[in-house]
Amino acid sequence: MSIEDDVRIVGQQALQASRDLAMFSTKKKNAFLEAMADELESRKDQILEANDKDVQAGRAEGLSAVLLDRLTLTDEVYESMIGGIQDVIGLKDQIGQKMSTWIRPNGLEINKVRVPIGVIGIIYESRPNVTADASVLCIKSSNTVILKGGKEALHSNRAIATALQEGGEKKGLPANAIQLIKTTDRSAVTALVRLNDYVDLVIPRGGEGLIHAVTVQATVPVIKHYKGVCHVYVDESADLDMAVDIIENAKCQRPGVCNSLETLLVNRAIAPAFLPRVAERLQSAGVELRGDEAARGLVPDMTEATEEDWSEEYLDLILSIAIVDDVKAAIEHINRYGSKHSDAIITQDERAQKCFMQQVDASTVYVNASTRFTDGNEFGLGAEMGISTDKLHARGPMGLEELTTYKYQVFGTGQIR
Amino acid sequence: MSIEDDVRIVGQQALQASRDLAMFSTKKKNAFLEAMADELESRKDQILEANDKDVQAGRAEGLSAVLLDRLTLTDEVYESMIGGIQDVIGLKDQIGQKMSTWIRPNGLEINKVRVPIGVIGIIYESRPNVTADASVLCIKSSNTVILKGGKEALHSNRAIATALQEGGEKKGLPANAIQLIKTTDRSAVTALVRLNDYVDLVIPRGGEGLIHAVTVQATVPVIKHYKGVCHVYVDESADLDMAVDIIENAKCQRPGVCNSLETLLVNRAIAPAFLPRVAERLQSAGVELRGDEAARGLVPDMTEATEEDWSEEYLDLILSIAIVDDVKAAIEHINRYGSKHSDAIITQDERAQKCFMQQVDASTVYVNASTRFTDGNEFGLGAEMGISTDKLHARGPMGLEELTTYKYQVFGTGQIR
Repeated sequence: MSIEDDVRIVGQQALQASRDLAMFSTKKKNAFLEAMADELESRKDQILEANDKDVQAGRAEGLSAVLLDRLTLTDEVYESMIGGIQDVIGLKDQIGQKMSTWIRPNGLEINKVRVPIGVIGIIYESRPNVTADASVLCIKSSNTVILKGGKEALHSNRAIATALQEGGEKKGLPANAIQLIKTTDRSAVTALVRLNDYVDLVIPRGGEGLIHAVTVQATVPVIKHYKGVCHVYVDESADLDMAVDIIENAKCQRPGVCNSLETLLVNRAIAPAFLPRVAERLQSAGVELRGDEAARGLVPDMTEATEEDWSEEYLDLILSIAIVDDVKAAIEHINRYGSKHSDAIITQDERAQKCFMQQVDASTVYVNASTRFTDGNEFGLGAEMGISTDKLHARGPMGLEELTTYKYQVFGTGQIR
Repeated sequence: MSIEDDVRIVGQQALQASRDLAMFSTKKKNAFLEAMADELESRKDQILEANDKDVQAGRAEGLSAVLLDRLTLTDEVYESMIGGIQDVIGLKDQIGQKMSTWIRPNGLEINKVRVPIGVIGIIYESRPNVTADASVLCIKSSNTVILKGGKEALHSNRAIATALQEGGEKKGLPANAIQLIKTTDRSAVTALVRLNDYVDLVIPRGGEGLIHAVTVQATVPVIKHYKGVCHVYVDESADLDMAVDIIENAKCQRPGVCNSLETLLVNRAIAPAFLPRVAERLQSAGVELRGDEAARGLVPDMTEATEEDWSEEYLDLILSIAIVDDVKAAIEHINRYGSKHSDAIITQDERAQKCFMQQVDASTVYVNASTRFTDGNEFGLGAEMGISTDKLHARGPMGLEELTTYKYQVFGTGQIR
């Protein structure tokens, strides 16, 4: 059988399973999740062994330290994978909730009700814990999931997906609710993202290459979890102490994640007073600074920022810096180079706040706070599938609610037009 | 310049205009709409002349009567185009509405706020009134619009789009808020649906060929307004008088629209009593019946329904009929052949109702009512962009609310992680 046929069968099975999964109560779904957590616990040695195989192979192939780090299931990562399941069990089930209900003059009762999306494909890279995190959110929201992880994590992903499916089945989880595409052939991704008869949504999580490949090939709807080129703009009226603290936090607290700071914009009027201060703090924290001409005029110990720097997601202790004339110029820079993820303004001026909040085109805009808060848990939404950088259906942290859609259930007594 | 370059410039202009449009108040937007309606009124002769040119050319090229009918701007269609603008002026503006707001333990105030989507591309076929209907909904929801209508309506579309844009400009509507792609070359559609840097959403409205072409080529998000293969299932416990009335209404009241009935499913137990009755009513209304073997056994005066009939959107006085064993078999038929649009069950049995409402995968499911109610006005949502048959972002009638997205506006006082 061809890879296309294989993937088609996976899709058919996922659709069939989704019809069954849609019928279960919250209590039953939580029982599936408990059993899945138990199975991960009891198969820990086996799964870590599979992971070790991947890590050894990755090392032999010369994977970078960053990739090896993402690939490795440490005890801590493993425990948080299991803990994550308990968190999702505790989250409110959205399925079946009435979003609104009204009665028309002709007596028709219209109910807008949350329902599962159906079949969700997740395409991701080297982190094997995504296998569990994504599956658990899908099952809690009554969606079946088709997983396509990176080839370097194949043994780990197989072991985890099998444990989750078989664990859930002990409590009645439908067969094929969680499926992993096991081929490492890239044509499987192409087949998956064109499976319009069976797949309702594809979520790609990863680098630019992966996202681009999925976007150009997909005929199924896609919600991208793309890069985060996040900005902080320090306005003329900013509290400069606060600004330094926020910038250091946004850049340094965890530089490898999508909501960390990549570009600092500083109002020209305060740049002479502010830029040397913040540069000193950042440089003592090991941050490499790349500035435009005006910034380099104020802090000589900076390399030159090129045009490419402005749209670069460093995910590292590097920061690009530009001096801008005013809030309008800051907004223009962000809308031109940003990735619609998270951007902040530091200011005491209400007009500047309002202008920035309204005009910056991003999932999350901040006044006087770190961009690092764009996160399902930090927002109080619970666990998340990731951060959508798209504008349709789900924007920003994508939690359980964003994994649902709705239907209209209309009750009549014989109404006709 | 190539067509790709032309379309790219249209996209850039639309994005620029959308930044400006986002800043206007409801009052100002309503003033634009008033001026647009006035302009349509004052240019009526000119626009009808342009339309006549299209109709003459269409007749010369041998367009079908149905297409000529859609193409023709009668006085009635023209007045309802203007009346539609008044309706939209009366609708509540969604932009800037707080969907929810909460304060986190660390003091961060999170606001989920409705914002425009940005730039919306509408790809449609021969109805020139869509040019106005779509533009007006986009402007009211602070989105700029790029229109690509059918080539047979080009003169009409140009005249209407120009009137709308120039009318709006008299009150300050940004230049390029409403743009029509004037080339009739098909490559313009391809270019438009791949304009990810400038276009946020594409809505194709039309036949299977158009929808398919857009879906396979698009890299921009798409919300399809696809065909309506709508079902009525008559359950064992149905009120048969009510069933006959609903079926006649759903099939005959306006057969050429997407929410009209295409396939009737009848429970085997009541088929002998029911099918001859409903067949008589439908046949006397001029409906051609196409049945499966069991149906033809009960009503001999029926042609044979082929496999293709079950997924056919007739848009005509034709009905396919199948006999099914129970509600479960009806649901399976609908989920297999339907188009996720609108489906109804006629029954007095609460269990059957619940089962049908939960398991049929469609935007709108009805108990004891005609499928003809799937419509923005009938739902009380006001004017609509069409009926989405997709499951993400917008499902069913797509009104002003569905033409918005949201962003998170977060207010802090120096919070860091």
